[in-house]
Amino acid sequence: MSLSMYEASVPVFKQLLVALDANLAKAEEHAAARKIEPDALLHARLFPDMFALIRQVQVACDFAKSVPARLAGVDVPTFDDNEASFGDLRARIAKTLAFAESLDAARFDGSEQREIVLRPGTPKEKRLDGKAYLLAYALPQFFFHVTTVYALLRHNGVEIGKKDFMGAY
Amino acid sequence: MSLSMYEASVPVFKQLLVALDANLAKAEEHAAARKIEPDALLHARLFPDMFALIRQVQVACDFAKSVPARLAGVDVPTFDDNEASFGDLRARIAKTLAFAESLDAARFDGSEQREIVLRPGTPKEKRLDGKAYLLAYALPQFFFHVTTVYALLRHNGVEIGKKDFMGAY
Repeated sequence: MSLSMYEASVPVFKQLLVALDANLAKAEEHAAARKIEPDALLHARLFPDMFALIRQVQVACDFAKSVPARLAGVDVPTFDDNEASFGDLRARIAKTLAFAESLDAARFDGSEQREIVLRPGTPKEKRLDGKAYLLAYALPQFFFHVTTVYALLRHNGVEIGKKDFMGAY
Repeated sequence: MSLSMYEASVPVFKQLLVALDANLAKAEEHAAARKIEPDALLHARLFPDMFALIRQVQVACDFAKSVPARLAGVDVPTFDDNEASFGDLRARIAKTLAFAESLDAARFDGSEQREIVLRPGTPKEKRLDGKAYLLAYALPQFFFHVTTVYALLRHNGVEIGKKDFMGAY
């Protein structure tokens, strides 16, 4: 075996969230320079029954805190979903990263076989081992939400490119 | 170490590409039922300087063939980029998966440390070890393109949801 559960989670979230943070900063500057109401971007959706940009960022952060917490075997921190500005969203990213990076990589050892119970006690309860939880469930959804934020910014004319999505690697 | 390079690549690509194939089938049915010209979806873009849907599918498939090939140490197969219909795109997905699944998982062992040279001999040449190539370079881009296809379909009214994006896990 050649990858640790830590390597396949925290650094991946960090790379993409640091990039997302920079893209949100660019979006805020873009709106200010063109006298665009920030809410026009913050509440943008690709289709009426999809999440708006604010919610997409919140959910991306939720994966980036809940996955490391569950793999490390610690409680998932609760964040209020009350962000209303680019600054608020960037602060949420910052606290998400601070939490994820506070976890000791050694706590992730063995988590590939640990049972993860999602939505426990509800009709939608789902049990996965840590490996399936990370690779089949969580990473696809994390990437889904960070990519959708990028799609929303691009669709609304913010001048960023795939390099900005990718961040530093 | 708890994950193999194979586990973190081929099954992930498979899950998402099987789901993408089903979503393209639904898009084709959607277009037929509403007398929408298929090209209206196939050439859709979220912004004029972004790739259209056909190209997004091609590039997603390119990652799903080139990454397993490089990690397994075999030549990357060349596909013509000549798809013009939903059927063509679905055929490309099928041949991508047939290739990826033809590779012996044991060939991926040790690839986390193997040097991968991207765009060799060009000004944009880049060297990464297999671990960074997979986790920091390839997975983010693969997910970027499959998610953008989903965003294009949703933005154009195809009735699919995140469950359809995720596929079976």
